[in-house]
Amino acid sequence: MNTNNHPALMGSLRPSSPSVKLINFSPGPTSLPKAVEEEIAQSFKKPGLTSLALSHRSPEFIDILRRTKASVRRIMNIPDDYELLFTHGGGHGQFAAVPLNLCHNKSDVATYIVNGTWTERARDEATRYCTVQSIDGRDPMGGYTTFPELIEEEIDPESKYLFLCSNETVNGIENHRLPRLPDSRRHIPLVIDASSDFTTKPIDWRDDGVGVLFACASKNIGHPGVTLTVVRKDLLGENCASPLCPGVFNYTTNAEAENLWNTPATFNIEVIGFLMDWLEHQGGVAENERRSIAKSSILYEVIDNSGGFYVTPVQNTSLRSRMNVPFNIKEGDETMTDDFLIQSWNEGMVGLRTLTPFGVGDYLRASLYNCITEEDAVRLADFMKRFARKN
Amino acid sequence: MNTNNHPALMGSLRPSSPSVKLINFSPGPTSLPKAVEEEIAQSFKKPGLTSLALSHRSPEFIDILRRTKASVRRIMNIPDDYELLFTHGGGHGQFAAVPLNLCHNKSDVATYIVNGTWTERARDEATRYCTVQSIDGRDPMGGYTTFPELIEEEIDPESKYLFLCSNETVNGIENHRLPRLPDSRRHIPLVIDASSDFTTKPIDWRDDGVGVLFACASKNIGHPGVTLTVVRKDLLGENCASPLCPGVFNYTTNAEAENLWNTPATFNIEVIGFLMDWLEHQGGVAENERRSIAKSSILYEVIDNSGGFYVTPVQNTSLRSRMNVPFNIKEGDETMTDDFLIQSWNEGMVGLRTLTPFGVGDYLRASLYNCITEEDAVRLADFMKRFARKN
Repeated sequence: MNTNNHPALMGSLRPSSPSVKLINFSPGPTSLPKAVEEEIAQSFKKPGLTSLALSHRSPEFIDILRRTKASVRRIMNIPDDYELLFTHGGGHGQFAAVPLNLCHNKSDVATYIVNGTWTERARDEATRYCTVQSIDGRDPMGGYTTFPELIEEEIDPESKYLFLCSNETVNGIENHRLPRLPDSRRHIPLVIDASSDFTTKPIDWRDDGVGVLFACASKNIGHPGVTLTVVRKDLLGENCASPLCPGVFNYTTNAEAENLWNTPATFNIEVIGFLMDWLEHQGGVAENERRSIAKSSILYEVIDNSGGFYVTPVQNTSLRSRMNVPFNIKEGDETMTDDFLIQSWNEGMVGLRTLTPFGVGDYLRASLYNCITEEDAVRLADFMKRFARKN
Repeated sequence: MNTNNHPALMGSLRPSSPSVKLINFSPGPTSLPKAVEEEIAQSFKKPGLTSLALSHRSPEFIDILRRTKASVRRIMNIPDDYELLFTHGGGHGQFAAVPLNLCHNKSDVATYIVNGTWTERARDEATRYCTVQSIDGRDPMGGYTTFPELIEEEIDPESKYLFLCSNETVNGIENHRLPRLPDSRRHIPLVIDASSDFTTKPIDWRDDGVGVLFACASKNIGHPGVTLTVVRKDLLGENCASPLCPGVFNYTTNAEAENLWNTPATFNIEVIGFLMDWLEHQGGVAENERRSIAKSSILYEVIDNSGGFYVTPVQNTSLRSRMNVPFNIKEGDETMTDDFLIQSWNEGMVGLRTLTPFGVGDYLRASLYNCITEEDAVRLADFMKRFARKN
């Protein structure tokens, strides 16, 4: 068989046969929990209009908006002095929106911890709007496998904010708790890109010093087209944002208009509400964290016990991502990797290699977002063990 | 009965009773044609993943993206020298994106024809990024009921573009064909906000001199969360956009990345594809224009023949919107207007008054997007006639 064009190697997400149950390990966008997908399908069968058809100014949508925000606030324990917004343009939109909102002038300083693909992109975007100081998070070999120590001298006390990504999806590096700034820098608000780990661990908003946190929906909380952005209210105000900040990105404008300055992504927001209801029903963030630890541990254990057959790049276990488990096979052996992808795809395990422009060599990635159950993780682990034994 | 809190007066879109068939006259977001809504519901029953769950880099989604773009291009007859993009941030996002892409410096001039709510907002947003020259489209009474004549002397020949909104939804003013610039100004690209009339009439892209055209999805072609933006390719290029243009708004960056620079709104794009298939099946743009003329004529006829019981503000019939028919009742008589809203709501006709911040006095609006059939328009017309007779 000529495997060059095999769907598994092209990143196909379709089932290999109609009877195969799919498990979607994609790094995002990805599936939603089965119960949420069913609730979406049900919503199209109810009488009346679906949220696809609702005016954003109708009482019916305003109720959806209110309930969704209340759920997020309750489940994520977000204090009243934080504003919740559903924003446009995904995580990349926020890469621009953050400096445009928190830096009034180009001379304002912002500090970026750069330890992976996403913080690189966030930093690059910010350079248009403020004076960026980077803390280089590369390891001695020049790769991204760690999170740097936060040293007083490396953080300008005048920084308008300190930016970090709490889970670098491509590189598989996660802060299981937000890092603490040195005491003399605790006045600097943290800005967190939590696109890929939001809802999977608690956040102590005030004590952690969070100023802004955003999460694009398409990994853990919904589907592409909307981003949840949480902003501490003291960072809002008429003259805070740069005069160059587009209205759709302006936190203050949108907060004052109660998220209706322009048309928000109505249906996409309702889906976040469904997800939040599901999450609450499952036991909330504490239970979700337990589950994330369990799912990822199952895979890291297989990798660590494979005698080098599988290798994961992040050695510091306290920084290993619970969301995205990168691993290579026999030091990146191509034929073996292709075999792995084809065989796992045949068994319905899809999304283990996405053809992105952000490739990190030979690593495959198993992403373990809210759609993945412990049973799903066990199934992949069993496959990995079988595959290693055979080879 | 105390009618103050009556759902009809609060802009409710729910059916007055479970047996009532809803007709959604909302100005957008609004319903999709019934067949499209059914196709969406069906898409959740198919085996495999829905587009909600597809990675934007999977062959399955790339196929959806390709097919949707091809449909739009075919149906709207878009030449190859135009790029199609699915963009973020709605129409308001484009209000910023247009000057940020077409004006490299703040000193670059752009001309705005301001003849309604949306061109006012577009102009205000543009002042952040370029030097705006406005052509005032107000009538002698100071209202927006017309479209100004385009006079050579009022258009700076150095303008990077001339902006207009081909259908001002709030004010009910439509250009049934794009206006022609004076010969000496024909080199200036038109930028068209076609958010509310796209697909309802033909566009002669090259001869009309279109440089950029955008349409948020939520009126005629889909649901909120995505905007279709068409850009003439000679306006793209590495150094065209302002260095201040956020990556998500940068036409060139996104065109070069084949619309995958960041995650596009996958499902929202697929829905546009469903709508395009429906449109083609119905007979395309020519048939859709015939239908738009028919639907709006039915209502304008009732208004014009009501002996002043109903009044619509735009007197020039060649500028009357086929998409949004504004009308007041007995010079805005409040009790009568409330009665009208309650009685029509009871019969399932919803969305005739949306509680927006852009109120234009006492006018109700019947919006006649792709979800509204000729039969639906007749039903409203019959109701209006009955109501006028009784009062």
